[in-house]
Amino acid sequence: MQFLSESVDDGLIERRFTVGDVPGILWAPSARSAPGATEPGTAARPLILLGHGGGQHKAAPGIAARARRFAADGFAVAAIDAPGHGDRPRTDRERRFSEGFAERMSAGEPVAEHVAAYHAEVAEHAVGDWKSVLDALQEVVGEGDAGYWGVSLGAAIGLPFIAADSRIGAAVVGLVAGDMVPVRASRVTIPIEFLVQWDDELVPRTAALELFDALASTEKTLHANPGPHAAVPRFEIDSAARFFLRHLS
Amino acid sequence: MQFLSESVDDGLIERRFTVGDVPGILWAPSARSAPGATEPGTAARPLILLGHGGGQHKAAPGIAARARRFAADGFAVAAIDAPGHGDRPRTDRERRFSEGFAERMSAGEPVAEHVAAYHAEVAEHAVGDWKSVLDALQEVVGEGDAGYWGVSLGAAIGLPFIAADSRIGAAVVGLVAGDMVPVRASRVTIPIEFLVQWDDELVPRTAALELFDALASTEKTLHANPGPHAAVPRFEIDSAARFFLRHLS
Repeated sequence: MQFLSESVDDGLIERRFTVGDVPGILWAPSARSAPGATEPGTAARPLILLGHGGGQHKAAPGIAARARRFAADGFAVAAIDAPGHGDRPRTDRERRFSEGFAERMSAGEPVAEHVAAYHAEVAEHAVGDWKSVLDALQEVVGEGDAGYWGVSLGAAIGLPFIAADSRIGAAVVGLVAGDMVPVRASRVTIPIEFLVQWDDELVPRTAALELFDALASTEKTLHANPGPHAAVPRFEIDSAARFFLRHLS
Repeated sequence: MQFLSESVDDGLIERRFTVGDVPGILWAPSARSAPGATEPGTAARPLILLGHGGGQHKAAPGIAARARRFAADGFAVAAIDAPGHGDRPRTDRERRFSEGFAERMSAGEPVAEHVAAYHAEVAEHAVGDWKSVLDALQEVVGEGDAGYWGVSLGAAIGLPFIAADSRIGAAVVGLVAGDMVPVRASRVTIPIEFLVQWDDELVPRTAALELFDALASTEKTLHANPGPHAAVPRFEIDSAARFFLRHLS
């Protein structure tokens, strides 16, 4: 793990890093008041991993807003660029996906199958990325259960990651259906807060509810709000923070 | 409005009252630190009304727990006994309902129609009770938008009450379907947090989701949790408190 830069803003240390060819950001509260802090920004406290959505990146506004909120509660928070996103090279895979997606949307054709195929390809690489990054991060912030937050592409990567890595103790995911996620829902057993957009133009409502139903977790909560795919209300950030405090503290 | 008794416990003033033949309890923070407090227990602060479930009453454990939590956030909180419940005379209506319910449950027959008929009868009286009680309470705690919390019978009474009384500005309801509620969902337009128990043995899941879908409110959030009718998780109390803080403060 290589740290590239460090800045402090509004009580938060932001450090850019790479693990192999995967670029990421680690946020941590700089205040000495953080519980269990031994050295600013490197204290042993629960870690939350943030997986961005399709077309976004590790420092997108929605990701940075969640990083700030979770860090304000004393968590260390990390985000990485998914394959083909942010500072990582865009490949033919991304070009094919974007073009095929735009064509289908403008023709009014279903996109689920196209999205699912892309998710499966990306997740195949991304799950390994997250495992390596979590290995490296735990040497900095300490071991212990970590949380995962990610919707849409972030959930399509997150759900197989959660199923494959027992270090994730709780997760907020959503804006996907079972056929968009390359893992069986019955392999997910940790506490889940599951987000649904009631009028999602990309994810059929019934299919999203079926995925929630199929999760094997004994503790799972569905939060559904009106509006399209990208319109998750801001108060759900606060709800996610409390969910992680309940399960990881 | 007649106050019958007053006690203080753990920073909370609890006053028993009657409005006509309707008995109730008013809880308020006793601390001088309550925002806007002019006199302990009588300050002008938002009011939350609690509607209990079938077979319960104004001081049932679930109601008292919510009263404490909401009062801790600075709200005044009131609960009344529904017709045929608590300190109010049990009538033939309640006896017929209980016997019919038990018979159907033990025979494995559907109960929805039986429950719906009872809800409609009770709500006819209960909506008027709430209007009179709110009139009286506003002389004590001041005017301004009030909140309503009630699930199951508390929602079957609450939804027609909300639709008929513009003084209610936000509500947490749930554990009912449209055919158990004697009002059209399209008449409900205020912000709603709607609770569903995913494995509800009394309310079919699809019918509960249809009621959420039909609410005309532009801001509405569905919270669904696994488990039977009576197993709403305790963390939903905290969520309801934050919902009321967001909409009434």
